Amino acid sequence: MFVHNKRLQYTVRVSESNPGLANLMLEQFGGPQGELAAACRYFTQALGEDDPGRKDMLLDIATEELSHLEIIGTIVAMLNKGAKGRLAEGNEAEAELYRSITGAGNDSHVTQVLYGGGPPLVNSAGVPWSAAYIDTIGEPTADLRSNIAAEARAKIVYERLINVTDDPGIKDALGFLMTREAAHLKSFEKALYAISPNFPPGKMPVDPAYATKYFNMSQGDGDMRGSWNSDENFDYVTDGDQEVPADDDDGLPTVALSENDKSTLDAMALRTQSDPKVNPVTGVELGEEDGAALDKGV
Amino acid sequence: MFVHNKRLQYTVRVSESNPGLANLMLEQFGGPQGELAAACRYFTQALGEDDPGRKDMLLDIATEELSHLEIIGTIVAMLNKGAKGRLAEGNEAEAELYRSITGAGNDSHVTQVLYGGGPPLVNSAGVPWSAAYIDTIGEPTADLRSNIAAEARAKIVYERLINVTDDPGIKDALGFLMTREAAHLKSFEKALYAISPNFPPGKMPVDPAYATKYFNMSQGDGDMRGSWNSDENFDYVTDGDQEVPADDDDGLPTVALSENDKSTLDAMALRTQSDPKVNPVTGVELGEEDGAALDKGV
Amino acid sequence: MFVHNKRLQYTVRVSESNPGLANLMLEQFGGPQGELAAACRYFTQALGEDDPGRKDMLLDIATEELSHLEIIGTIVAMLNKGAKGRLAEGNEAEAELYRSITGAGNDSHVTQVLYGGGPPLVNSAGVPWSAAYIDTIGEPTADLRSNIAAEARAKIVYERLINVTDDPGIKDALGFLMTREAAHLKSFEKALYAISPNFPPGKMPVDPAYATKYFNMSQGDGDMRGSWNSDENFDYVTDGDQEVPADDDDGLPTVALSENDKSTLDAMALRTQSDPKVNPVTGVELGEEDGAALDKGV
Amino acid sequence: MFVHNKRLQYTVRVSESNPGLANLMLEQFGGPQGELAAACRYFTQALGEDDPGRKDMLLDIATEELSHLEIIGTIVAMLNKGAKGRLAEGNEAEAELYRSITGAGNDSHVTQVLYGGGPPLVNSAGVPWSAAYIDTIGEPTADLRSNIAAEARAKIVYERLINVTDDPGIKDALGFLMTREAAHLKSFEKALYAISPNFPPGKMPVDPAYATKYFNMSQGDGDMRGSWNSDENFDYVTDGDQEVPADDDDGLPTVALSENDKSTLDAMALRTQSDPKVNPVTGVELGEEDGAALDKGV
Amino acid sequence: MFVHNKRLQYTVRVSESNPGLANLMLEQFGGPQGELAAACRYFTQALGEDDPGRKDMLLDIATEELSHLEIIGTIVAMLNKGAKGRLAEGNEAEAELYRSITGAGNDSHVTQVLYGGGPPLVNSAGVPWSAAYIDTIGEPTADLRSNIAAEARAKIVYERLINVTDDPGIKDALGFLMTREAAHLKSFEKALYAISPNFPPGKMPVDPAYATKYFNMSQGDGDMRGSWNSDENFDYVTDGDQEVPADDDDGLPTVALSENDKSTLDAMALRTQSDPKVNPVTGVELGEEDGAALDKGV
Amino acid sequence: MFVHNKRLQYTVRVSESNPGLANLMLEQFGGPQGELAAACRYFTQALGEDDPGRKDMLLDIATEELSHLEIIGTIVAMLNKGAKGRLAEGNEAEAELYRSITGAGNDSHVTQVLYGGGPPLVNSAGVPWSAAYIDTIGEPTADLRSNIAAEARAKIVYERLINVTDDPGIKDALGFLMTREAAHLKSFEKALYAISPNFPPGKMPVDPAYATKYFNMSQGDGDMRGSWNSDENFDYVTDGDQEVPADDDDGLPTVALSENDKSTLDAMALRTQSDPKVNPVTGVELGEEDGAALDKGV
Repeated sequence: MFVHNKRLQYTVRVSESNPGLANLMLEQFGGPQGELAAACRYFTQALGEDDPGRKDMLLDIATEELSHLEIIGTIVAMLNKGAKGRLAEGNEAEAELYRSITGAGNDSHVTQVLYGGGPPLVNSAGVPWSAAYIDTIGEPTADLRSNIAAEARAKIVYERLINVTDDPGIKDALGFLMTREAAHLKSFEKALYAISPNFPPGKMPVDPAYATKYFNMSQGDGDMRGSWNSDENFDYVTDGDQEVPADDDDGLPTVALSENDKSTLDAMALRTQSDPKVNPVTGVELGEEDGAALDKGV
Repeated sequence: MFVHNKRLQYTVRVSESNPGLANLMLEQFGGPQGELAAACRYFTQALGEDDPGRKDMLLDIATEELSHLEIIGTIVAMLNKGAKGRLAEGNEAEAELYRSITGAGNDSHVTQVLYGGGPPLVNSAGVPWSAAYIDTIGEPTADLRSNIAAEARAKIVYERLINVTDDPGIKDALGFLMTREAAHLKSFEKALYAISPNFPPGKMPVDPAYATKYFNMSQGDGDMRGSWNSDENFDYVTDGDQEVPADDDDGLPTVALSENDKSTLDAMALRTQSDPKVNPVTGVELGEEDGAALDKGV
Repeated sequence: MFVHNKRLQYTVRVSESNPGLANLMLEQFGGPQGELAAACRYFTQALGEDDPGRKDMLLDIATEELSHLEIIGTIVAMLNKGAKGRLAEGNEAEAELYRSITGAGNDSHVTQVLYGGGPPLVNSAGVPWSAAYIDTIGEPTADLRSNIAAEARAKIVYERLINVTDDPGIKDALGFLMTREAAHLKSFEKALYAISPNFPPGKMPVDPAYATKYFNMSQGDGDMRGSWNSDENFDYVTDGDQEVPADDDDGLPTVALSENDKSTLDAMALRTQSDPKVNPVTGVELGEEDGAALDKGV
Repeated sequence: MFVHNKRLQYTVRVSESNPGLANLMLEQFGGPQGELAAACRYFTQALGEDDPGRKDMLLDIATEELSHLEIIGTIVAMLNKGAKGRLAEGNEAEAELYRSITGAGNDSHVTQVLYGGGPPLVNSAGVPWSAAYIDTIGEPTADLRSNIAAEARAKIVYERLINVTDDPGIKDALGFLMTREAAHLKSFEKALYAISPNFPPGKMPVDPAYATKYFNMSQGDGDMRGSWNSDENFDYVTDGDQEVPADDDDGLPTVALSENDKSTLDAMALRTQSDPKVNPVTGVELGEEDGAALDKGV
Repeated sequence: MFVHNKRLQYTVRVSESNPGLANLMLEQFGGPQGELAAACRYFTQALGEDDPGRKDMLLDIATEELSHLEIIGTIVAMLNKGAKGRLAEGNEAEAELYRSITGAGNDSHVTQVLYGGGPPLVNSAGVPWSAAYIDTIGEPTADLRSNIAAEARAKIVYERLINVTDDPGIKDALGFLMTREAAHLKSFEKALYAISPNFPPGKMPVDPAYATKYFNMSQGDGDMRGSWNSDENFDYVTDGDQEVPADDDDGLPTVALSENDKSTLDAMALRTQSDPKVNPVTGVELGEEDGAALDKGV
Repeated sequence: MFVHNKRLQYTVRVSESNPGLANLMLEQFGGPQGELAAACRYFTQALGEDDPGRKDMLLDIATEELSHLEIIGTIVAMLNKGAKGRLAEGNEAEAELYRSITGAGNDSHVTQVLYGGGPPLVNSAGVPWSAAYIDTIGEPTADLRSNIAAEARAKIVYERLINVTDDPGIKDALGFLMTREAAHLKSFEKALYAISPNFPPGKMPVDPAYATKYFNMSQGDGDMRGSWNSDENFDYVTDGDQEVPADDDDGLPTVALSENDKSTLDAMALRTQSDPKVNPVTGVELGEEDGAALDKGV
């Protein structure tokens, strides 16, 4: 069960209201790399987890991410606070209000007209948060890698947000949030490598015939070798412009069908055949400059 | 530019038509961990990439993933081939057709009624593929980690699909696809660690005051220590049931507002106050068993 | 900031594993009327709220809803626990595994193949949770009404879930959750009616010319009168089959345009006119049974 | 069946073309609180409704909302009419066209480039309308509350739109639409309270042990009492910083499993354990500043 | 403005309740090819249309499609009517109710648990309707072609639904709806070809250098010629396995950059280079069977 | 299988970096009418196609569309190249960076903050690409019409993009892409009309009683006749303001129900009746200006 403490995990001091900046901050509130995604990711993993160490860690970090969601949402609310009352009270000239929500440097009209200056769970484009952002699949050697990647992404988006604001209180709080992503990344790395072996992920062995092949599928000037495709690590396959199936078979798909299915398919094929022997008049000819000649009325 | 070769990268031999199994296979065609996601992920990264080695690698792997998309889509098409003609030709009894698309072991009615037995870009629940599945953010130390995780997830989903079919041709092709995910994972690892340093991701340094703290936010029986929160690696913070802000400040948010904004907000606050001193009659009282007494008609 | 306590807010005892039932329970985990929606709804409202009483109440209830999310997610995890290991370990015959995820009474293949038996934030159809489910707009006289309605809906979905399971431990926990929705509904009602006036919602007065009209727009047998359209409460407008604009004007839209815009539009109109005086040959005639006669090759 | 009358339900007179304002108006056309949502909400409820009074009312109001959809869509079309021809005819300098769709005060590039100046069913952010906005669940004591809330929200969004335009014809038409929302709200209230009892919603009784409890889950400075949690109306539960399960049980979840499931889970647990006794080298150490020392090539 | 007439446009007689069949029928209610899509498509086109003939036609057909939406929604409601009361009243054994919503031939649990047996705007997979299904772009020579295609698709989905039911009243009503799609298709064809010329669509001329080329991009056994790529109609380009850029230039992209941008990009390139000269130890080596040797504790 | 050639299918020369223009170009990269949609549409049709001519054509065109996706994505990448390094390196003043991503003429903040200046699969509003954009249903007489329409739409959106840029290299490349859409349209027309008959689409005959009726459902000034509803082509039905069911029956839906279902529905009806004989006090009365009189405390 959760308990809430009315103090934030990190103190937020905003020096002035700025709805355009508030809108950018939404990336880490309701955006794909934001704190709701992080909290939901770890919390749902925790519920399905049976390993006691990982379960405890996931609950710790999920709870911290909820506290981060509160911090970034509070930054949005503070930045919108000045603007919030203006549309609601409507005691300014309309043209001024219009400018205040659509001016240069300020793409905040969605936040204001639709959400009234509150912190909605959308990104800075106004796209609602979706659980499609969460890539958990219920296998720790995959999910921990996903968590590591998610923390890396969140770290970067915070870095970008810090680069576009000069409000010291916001920079400070964002710096805390950015740093915590790196700390979480490290915990997830430790938990992953404490599973042995963890590569390849899962249980089923890979096929040694294809496990170290590297197919040079993009060809031409620009081909380059490095450890990711070097002979040291891989069996590099390049067959000029003529690729062959990896299994050295014919590369043609087949399926065995019942007689009944076959005859039904034959009937369908006949009915829907595009006859290669005709050159039909089509809509294109009818629609071209001189198509009017085909007017039935003529 | 792309060129297509009519042979598959791996030969597909399906032993019988089975639309219920076809539906499960859609997870790796139009599902979140499937081949379209993989191909789009690497191809769009390649277009934005300036590092010549990574660009080449991303194009190689993106092109291979497109070839995998073709393999898994062909498996779906083969498994649906028998069923495809049946609804189209409609020469069976209706009740039989109804059973054939909604029976036990066969959740294929969407594929058949809506998509006509073709391979649609949806997952096995019928949810359309979305670019929200792609988590690329344009920074290699994050994107390569995301790619590593994506390959791990795809490997696992193939493993599960292999576990639910006994068709040897399908098992064989899925085994090839599963194996290639592990090979790609390795290439991405090499490319990531060939960037030095790559931790923390991005350019901006983290705040040392918070970089190695571990907050024990979930408390009670079940707390556990391991390398992910050990004293060796972290500064473990647990303050019983009473959490304090990480910055030792008051944890209370503030924003400086103009006089005009303040007075507008005051007006709004007054107008919309929920008065704590009244106990109003509400819809609940009106709606309860004896609410009829308030009928105006009485 | 949030703190987590490892005990659930309500004890969950599940009598046997049942992935089909687990799937139904997802409606209240990642479904539109479920606990994530509730928690996000109240938490984001709280962040934007300045009224101290409502803010406190919203935080209390949001935190409780997170605790409910944990309860229902734990029920899903318990119901899936038996199934979770089976696909992962893959030590059963494939046909048996196939049946166990697609059999009658068991639409759990998405949960299992894609999510590995964990509790994903999707509904029972596998549709990912979306913040589009949240209808908060940042005005208390609207948002409190939305909250009241949301609690009513959640109460009903719990009622339906209770009706389809006979596991006493699950029925018991769902009964607790269902009851709490009613309690929250009552709190929101009190907070709404403690705002005076709260009707009409918002600040701007309505137009008395149209505020009490009821338009009988659907006509024919079945017209019925009641307090929702009675003369006592409304001015009932029915003009047979011939509706007239409510403003008694001509009902025709106009816009003033610049000369330049007008001439551009005229050019566009001319270019794209569908000429009513011709009867063109079209694709339909080409495509009908005897369309072959138009083959250019003839 | 529906019949359409070419006159609008309210006459629309727009004083000049303004695609930026048109874009804002989309909130009530294809936005979550807009007229399509309203029409679909009531129409689908009507189809499933068996109570003759509610069915008639829902059809009346659904039909009126369709007529409102036509009004707001016509406003959008009028505001875009000047702009519509410009991209299509392309007879201006490119730079001027570019400015006319991306300038300050004018976030209309999506409407124009993608939708050609027509009225698309998207909101002002360009997010397509989704039936996920409709919260109907097929139970009148919930659906009527949802309808009341929906009308309150729509009233507010119209209020905001009126506040940002000074075009008198638009203000007038929006005022009509805003007013009608309040009238509909009243009809839905009457229909709700004409069901007796209607609280708690649905049929199943709530558990008296938990129906009047209020849990003080968010603690600290800011706790406040009012009718929504007062002793008069609720049993206020606050246990300092130490919450206990509401059922006074241990709060620990259990599920009974078969022997077979248990041993499979044990195998999985062993295979995927994150070993708390090791401190593994991880990607973090490899990636840090001095990670190069681990280069195999050294 | 719309007016509603309580009689359906076509009489619906359902011979027995069948929630599984109701679920399939949702494809034409809230599915991508269904009647809501049709009605919204033509209605929004009509609002933006200035050509008087097309505007009238679009309003006629949009209104008819709304009447069709009512017919198919009524079929869904009738098929669900028996089931609707069962979950609501809950006076059956739970196991029986469970079976009645999840049994073979009956994928109706979403409709019932979430939507209470009403007709929701989702398809048969439970995916909510989305305006992303509408492809209108505000240009008649494109939109009329889109409408023609939409009618063709709807005709086919009705055909499939007719093939899976033997209820004569439903077959009859679906036959009416199917037929009307063909009639609308014909009207749209006439309106399209009454624009002259209508090919190529829009105003801007195509480049004659590329307008009749056909690129044989997919090569190998299976290449086939027909009127769609015949020499009669096209300039067929096939260059073996070695495609060259269509413009006979080098196919390499360039952009002119400022000095400042160049130096920033150089700095970024250096910082994020994947060094091709090293062969770094990576997570893969750490995670493989013998990765434990790298345990720091050793 | 696919092979990639590092040269583009058309050479791209961009004269200067412009992230605002890059954002518009996204419409044809990740937008609904863009190249990913085209490539996926034809590729998935090809996989399910058994007609050898159409299959070959679909693979040829799908492969070309992938090559177009690369061209438009490369344009986006080139236009963003200057901006890409700026947020990443962060060596400018924050205010300048802020302006560079939110200024007039430049709605690129999503591309930059979230996607780091890469080419994401979103449209110019930031909405992620969705397979809901693809309308393939697995029947060639419908799918080819859908393809024709899709090519027409894509042609138009390119035309609009050409109209808003004066960069000659971009105009040139877009002109190539635009032209190819028209060429593909022609191939699809040929393949469609090479099926005989192709109207009505599919196999099932339409009902002659309704196949040529035109219902004048929208009435009033503005009714107009043309070939789309002329007596020559249609049986024009207009019955003043009083529409009658097309089948001349009563237009009332019925369903046969079991006794048990009937009594359950009766119980539900009674329980949830909105009683037309009462005029209940409601929330509206409580909430109006003088609602305070109902305060229980009074």
